[in-house]
Amino acid sequence: MIIGALMCVPLFMSFGYHENAAAIGFAVAIGVCVALGILGLALRPPKDKRDLRPSSGFAICGLFWILIAMIGALPFCVSKAIPNYIDALFETVSGFTTTGSSIIPAVEDIPRSLLFWRALTQWIGGMGVLVFIIAILPRNDKMSTALAKAEIPGPQFGKLVSKLRFTSRILYAIYIALTLMLVAILCICGMPVFDAFCHAFSTASTGGFSVLNGGILAYNSIGIEVTITIFMILFSVNFNIYYFILIGHVFKALKNEELICMLLIYFGTVAAIVANLCLTHTYSSFGEALRYTSFNVASVMSTTGFGTGDFAKWPVLSQALLLGVMCIGGSAGSTAGGLKVSRLIILSKSSFNSLRGTLSPRTVRALKMDGKALDDATVTNVRSFLILYVFIVIISTVLVSIGGGMSGSFETNFSAVIACFNNIGPGIGAVGPYGNYAGFNIFAKIVLTFDMLLGRLEILPILLIFTPKSWRRIK
Amino acid sequence: MIIGALMCVPLFMSFGYHENAAAIGFAVAIGVCVALGILGLALRPPKDKRDLRPSSGFAICGLFWILIAMIGALPFCVSKAIPNYIDALFETVSGFTTTGSSIIPAVEDIPRSLLFWRALTQWIGGMGVLVFIIAILPRNDKMSTALAKAEIPGPQFGKLVSKLRFTSRILYAIYIALTLMLVAILCICGMPVFDAFCHAFSTASTGGFSVLNGGILAYNSIGIEVTITIFMILFSVNFNIYYFILIGHVFKALKNEELICMLLIYFGTVAAIVANLCLTHTYSSFGEALRYTSFNVASVMSTTGFGTGDFAKWPVLSQALLLGVMCIGGSAGSTAGGLKVSRLIILSKSSFNSLRGTLSPRTVRALKMDGKALDDATVTNVRSFLILYVFIVIISTVLVSIGGGMSGSFETNFSAVIACFNNIGPGIGAVGPYGNYAGFNIFAKIVLTFDMLLGRLEILPILLIFTPKSWRRIK
Repeated sequence: MIIGALMCVPLFMSFGYHENAAAIGFAVAIGVCVALGILGLALRPPKDKRDLRPSSGFAICGLFWILIAMIGALPFCVSKAIPNYIDALFETVSGFTTTGSSIIPAVEDIPRSLLFWRALTQWIGGMGVLVFIIAILPRNDKMSTALAKAEIPGPQFGKLVSKLRFTSRILYAIYIALTLMLVAILCICGMPVFDAFCHAFSTASTGGFSVLNGGILAYNSIGIEVTITIFMILFSVNFNIYYFILIGHVFKALKNEELICMLLIYFGTVAAIVANLCLTHTYSSFGEALRYTSFNVASVMSTTGFGTGDFAKWPVLSQALLLGVMCIGGSAGSTAGGLKVSRLIILSKSSFNSLRGTLSPRTVRALKMDGKALDDATVTNVRSFLILYVFIVIISTVLVSIGGGMSGSFETNFSAVIACFNNIGPGIGAVGPYGNYAGFNIFAKIVLTFDMLLGRLEILPILLIFTPKSWRRIK
Repeated sequence: MIIGALMCVPLFMSFGYHENAAAIGFAVAIGVCVALGILGLALRPPKDKRDLRPSSGFAICGLFWILIAMIGALPFCVSKAIPNYIDALFETVSGFTTTGSSIIPAVEDIPRSLLFWRALTQWIGGMGVLVFIIAILPRNDKMSTALAKAEIPGPQFGKLVSKLRFTSRILYAIYIALTLMLVAILCICGMPVFDAFCHAFSTASTGGFSVLNGGILAYNSIGIEVTITIFMILFSVNFNIYYFILIGHVFKALKNEELICMLLIYFGTVAAIVANLCLTHTYSSFGEALRYTSFNVASVMSTTGFGTGDFAKWPVLSQALLLGVMCIGGSAGSTAGGLKVSRLIILSKSSFNSLRGTLSPRTVRALKMDGKALDDATVTNVRSFLILYVFIVIISTVLVSIGGGMSGSFETNFSAVIACFNNIGPGIGAVGPYGNYAGFNIFAKIVLTFDMLLGRLEILPILLIFTPKSWRRIK
C-alpha cells in the first residue's frame, strides 16, 4: 500500500502532462497494490505469532523485492511505453536495485511521468524499501531487525541508536536532506527542475538513469558535472559517518578506515587513468582527460553509471582499471553497490594474516578494523561472500552467453554481468555508456535481472527464497 | 649439476643434427650449471645446520625455479634462435612451468635439439625438479619435506609411504612408465620418433609445446588425437590414484571424490559445447564437433594447451565455458595446473556450509572429503588461495594492459593472464591456439613470466622469496 501511495505522485504528474496511457498504467498498478495490501492485512498472523527466524526475514525481503518489481513494471507495460513485460521488469528491477541498466534506446520518447517513476524507483531502492517501511511503522523490533539486516548492504550491521525504527529514520533523514541539497544545487547550475529531481534521485541512489538521451554530458556544463561527481562520492560513503558528524564526533568519523581507503582508491585510479589517457593522447588536453576521468571513475566506483565520454573507446589499461573499480564499489551502509570497500579491506587483511600464519604457525593474530577486533564469523562470511560472488559471475556469464549473448562478444557479456551484478549500469563494449541492453535475448535478460537482485540484496536473500527451511514455522 | 647432466641429451642431439650454434648454447649453459654446482657444494652449510623452517623451504624452491629458468634460457639466447634474453626466459619459464605459451611464430625454424630441450623442460617441470632431486639424493628428510611441499600442487600434501624419498621415486616411476607408454602408442599411430618423444613430454607434463607449426592437427590422424586426449586426462588425475591401483586398492582409488568430480566436469562441458556448436552450425557435422570439442576441453582442462581447430572462432558460450574450465584445471597431485578440482570441491562445500550456518547458527557441521573430515587450517588456506588468485588475476591484467597490452583488447590481455597463471598456454583472441605471445611488450612478458611461476608453484613460494624472514637463520 505504501508503494501504491508513492505511485500516486507520477499518477498526478501524468494528469498534468496529459499522458493518458501512462495514467491508466499507474492506475492499474495502484489497484494491484491496494488489492494485495488488503489481502495481506486480511491474512496477517495474530500478534503473538509474528516472530521471525533470521533466514525467514532474508527470504521475505528477497520475495518482497521481486513482488514490488513486478508491480512497478506494470505502468511501463500497460502504457505500451515498454510493450514487452520482461523488458519492463528488467527496467524496473534495474531501477529498484539502483543498477541503471536500460533497455530503452531513446529515453526522450518515454512519457515524462514514467521517466519520473523510473527515477523514483531508484531513489526508493537506494536506501531500501523495507527500511523506509520500518521508519514509518511504529512496531515489532525483532521482526524489523531481520528484515533490515537483509536489506542494508555491507558485512556488518550496526544500529546507530538502540531502536531500529529511529536508526531508519535518521538514515532516511540524512538521505532526504542530501537529495534536496543536490536538487537545489543542480537548479542553481541551470538544470530544469524536472531534470534536477530525476537526476538527483539517480545520483542519491547511485542508480544512473538519465532523462536525456545524451546523459549528463548533454547539458555541457562543468558545474553540473562537478556537482554530480562530488555527490556521487558523498552517496557512496557509509551513512553512519554523517550521523557521527551530525552528533559532533567529526574526528572519529573522518578517521574511518573504509572512508580513507575508498578515497585513496578513487584518487589513485583517477591519477593512473589520467596518466594513461594523456600518454596515449586519447583527449586533446590534460583538462579534458581530468574532467572525463574524475566523473567516470566516481560514476563507476559509486556504481551510479552515468557516462560522459564513451569510456568504451579508452585504452585497454584504463578499461581494466575501470572494471577493477567496478567490482570494488562503494562503502558498506551507503547506497552504492559492488563488493564494498570494507569487504576488500577484510579480505586483504585476512589473506595477509593467512600468509603470516604459514610463516609462523604458532602465533595467533587478531584481525582489526578501525582499531576493533573483527570476530571470526564476520571474516568467514566475507570470505564466503567473495567465493559466491566469483561463482555467480562465472555462472551468469555462461548463462548469458547461451544463444550468443549480445554481439557474440565475450567482453560485452562479461562486463554486462559485472555491471548488473554490481548494480552499476553500463559496461564495456556494446553495453558501454552509449549502448543499451535491448540486444540481449529474453533468457539473458532474466539472468541479468536476477543478477541485479542478487547484487543489491547481497546474494543471501535471493538464495534463501529457494530454501524450504526459510518458509517453515518457528516451533 | 643435475640440470647440467640433463642438458647433455640435447647437446649430443645437436652434434647429431650438426646444429653448431645450439651446441655452443648448450655447452655454455652446462658450464654455468657445473660452475654454480661446484660453488654450491663449496658453500653448503655443515651437516648439523641443515634444518629448514617451512617458509625457507618455500622460498628456496621459488628461487631455485627462477635460477633454473635463467640457466635454461641460455641455449636459446646464445644460439640466436631467440635473440632477446627476456623472450628466451619467457619461453623457458613457459616450459618448466608446463604452461606452453610461446613467443615463437614458427617453431619449425628452430633447431631440433632446441625443440627437444624445450619439450624436456616441460617434462622436468611437470613432476617437479626438486621432487626429482629428492628421488635421487639419499638423505635429509626434514629439509626435503619442506621443499617437496612447496613443489607438489594441491591443497593437501600426503606422503604415500613413510619415507619421502620413496614417495618421490614411486611418483617418478609412474610418470616415466606412462610417458613411455604414450611414446610407444604415438609411434604405432604413425608419428615420427622425435615428434613422439617431444609430444609425449608435452602431454605428460600437460605443457603443450608442439614441434610443428600446425600443432597436433597437422598429423590429421584421429588415432593420434584420441590417444593424446586420453593421456591428457590421465595425466591430470592425482598420481596417488595410480599408486593405489598398483597396490591393489582399485575400488578405493576409483571412489575418489576429486576423480569423479573431474570426469563429471569434463563430460558435462564437452556435452554443453558440442550442443552449442551443433546448434550454431560451427562445424559441418556432429562427428567433427565432437572430435574438436573432446580434444580441446581435455587440452584446456588438463592445462596442456594443444590446440586443434581455432576455438577463438567458437561461439561465445563455448568460449566462456572453456575459460571456466581453464580456471578450474586438473586434480591436485597431477601435472596439471589451474585452481585444481579438489580446491573447487572444498570451496563449494565450505560456502554451502557457511550458508547453512546462517540458517541455523548454533549447529556445527564438519566439512568432509572422501569421507574424512577436513581440518580448519586446510579450508582457511584454500579460501586464502582463492582470494590471492583473484587478486593476482586482476592486478596482472592491469599490469599487462600498461602500454596497451596486445592488440589493445581486454579479452586478449585477460585471457593471456588466465592462460599463463593457470599454466595452460593459449588463450582467447590474439593469443588463441594459432596466435602467440610475441606481440606483448617486455614489461608485459615479465609480468606473464611471473604469473606462470606463481601458477606452477601455487603463489606462496614466489611471494616468500620477498619475505625477509624466509632467509633468517633458525636459532
